[in-house]
Amino acid sequence: MSKHGRLATYSADGKLRYGFVAEKGVVDLSSRMSASFPTLKDAIQARALTSLVEEGARHPPDHALDAISWHPPVSKPEKIICVGVNYPDRNAEYKDGKAPAPYPSLFLRTERSFVGHDAALMRPRASSQLDYEGELVLVIGKAGRHIPEKDALDHVAGLTLCNEGTLRDWVRHAKFNVTQGKNFEASGSLGPWLVPYVNEAQIADIRLTTRVNGELRQEDRTSRLIFGFRYLIAYLSTFTTLVPGDIIVTGTPTGAGARLDPPRYLVPGDVIEVEAEGVGILRNGVADEQR
Amino acid sequence: MSKHGRLATYSADGKLRYGFVAEKGVVDLSSRMSASFPTLKDAIQARALTSLVEEGARHPPDHALDAISWHPPVSKPEKIICVGVNYPDRNAEYKDGKAPAPYPSLFLRTERSFVGHDAALMRPRASSQLDYEGELVLVIGKAGRHIPEKDALDHVAGLTLCNEGTLRDWVRHAKFNVTQGKNFEASGSLGPWLVPYVNEAQIADIRLTTRVNGELRQEDRTSRLIFGFRYLIAYLSTFTTLVPGDIIVTGTPTGAGARLDPPRYLVPGDVIEVEAEGVGILRNGVADEQR
Repeated sequence: MSKHGRLATYSADGKLRYGFVAEKGVVDLSSRMSASFPTLKDAIQARALTSLVEEGARHPPDHALDAISWHPPVSKPEKIICVGVNYPDRNAEYKDGKAPAPYPSLFLRTERSFVGHDAALMRPRASSQLDYEGELVLVIGKAGRHIPEKDALDHVAGLTLCNEGTLRDWVRHAKFNVTQGKNFEASGSLGPWLVPYVNEAQIADIRLTTRVNGELRQEDRTSRLIFGFRYLIAYLSTFTTLVPGDIIVTGTPTGAGARLDPPRYLVPGDVIEVEAEGVGILRNGVADEQR
Repeated sequence: MSKHGRLATYSADGKLRYGFVAEKGVVDLSSRMSASFPTLKDAIQARALTSLVEEGARHPPDHALDAISWHPPVSKPEKIICVGVNYPDRNAEYKDGKAPAPYPSLFLRTERSFVGHDAALMRPRASSQLDYEGELVLVIGKAGRHIPEKDALDHVAGLTLCNEGTLRDWVRHAKFNVTQGKNFEASGSLGPWLVPYVNEAQIADIRLTTRVNGELRQEDRTSRLIFGFRYLIAYLSTFTTLVPGDIIVTGTPTGAGARLDPPRYLVPGDVIEVEAEGVGILRNGVADEQR
């Protein structure tokens, strides 16, 4: 369990809530603090995550963990920016003979392309090539443009995880851009919760892994990122204002199913776990889109 | 003036409003109808654009046209989906020897990458290669997934225009994707208003042009689109649910500044006009980002 606390957005009794995740249940903070912070995003904007954790730790759980549905930690983020090809050897996996790009590859995802922890990723009618990508996520807490690298981490409010689920054939539909294969409805996940960002030691050199049905498929350390966290925030803020609640999905290690020989895509019954030290485990099953 | 009426989102007297655009001013509909429709997007969702036009036509203007600031017609759209390489000869402009892709090239833009009519496009500190792309925009009015082509236009609520402003060097920063060059703050525009969609004749074969300082730079007809409107809606809805207020920017003709020899990028003082028959003229100047 993270020593910095864990804050989740979830639904229980038919209502969307946010709360503090204790060992055996969730303390409903939205019912206690919604006058100040209607949503977890509002608390992020108010830089109040640490005080939420303190408040949460004072109460017994209101909901058992098996009585809630997990949602992505931030509802209605202004933008979800994903970084491609950002761990060593990822460029070589493309086998296109091209040198690594001098800048990060970026794409945007819609909120509706994600589910929360424990929900099933949707394998769509249109493709059988659903694939996983485990990634560490930075959630922005303070707005900024032209942020210098030295100040970049002051703009981070929290950490979470992403299974940046991808339909491999659909990322190659077009002349440019991976948009459609990265934006299938409910094809990825975010969560399970937000760990407040306190200091760089939480992210500088942590182990990031992805397991499918218990088998280790992806493993790397954040210290090996090609474009590090400070650089990413500085670079993104060159062209856009980062605002509280913005989601930065920072890239995946080698070893996605498409890179195996033969490729191994996800099928219903699979369980995928993305884990990062000090953050948690994001677990999802797979279900077919209804016909 | 469009015979189907024109509805705009604008600010006046320090307040964000929406209204009916008459010949000499704007009829404030938000002050009259905000109980039913707090925003124009809510009116779109309620399929109420025609009744807004009827209501607007019954009143004299509340604001002179020179007393308002134009905003993009839809505030906080869930998503803004842009289509690349969608008019004949656009593929050849890339001079990469590659055949046209079998499916549309897509990318997402953030709302904050756009300004409204009459506002200045921002030429950023980071690049001197600001370029125009004039495009016709479909605004979705009815939610749908897996929409068949035959029903596709039933999901369109209105039409507007886009100057899909692009920083040419920044679209080539990365291995894949044009994201950063397409998402500079205030680098494009949407507007000036929404024309309610009534029938296919409004969009099937209309002339789309872009002028810079009065000089014709882009000119084509929507009947020549590689991926037509019905196809685009069907294709997009294969991977995502389209929802009311979604913006589909449908592609630009040949003749952007980057394609000229030598290239001619936008500079402060330039005036760019995007025009489509029956929709209107979207006009913007250019200003440098403040240092």
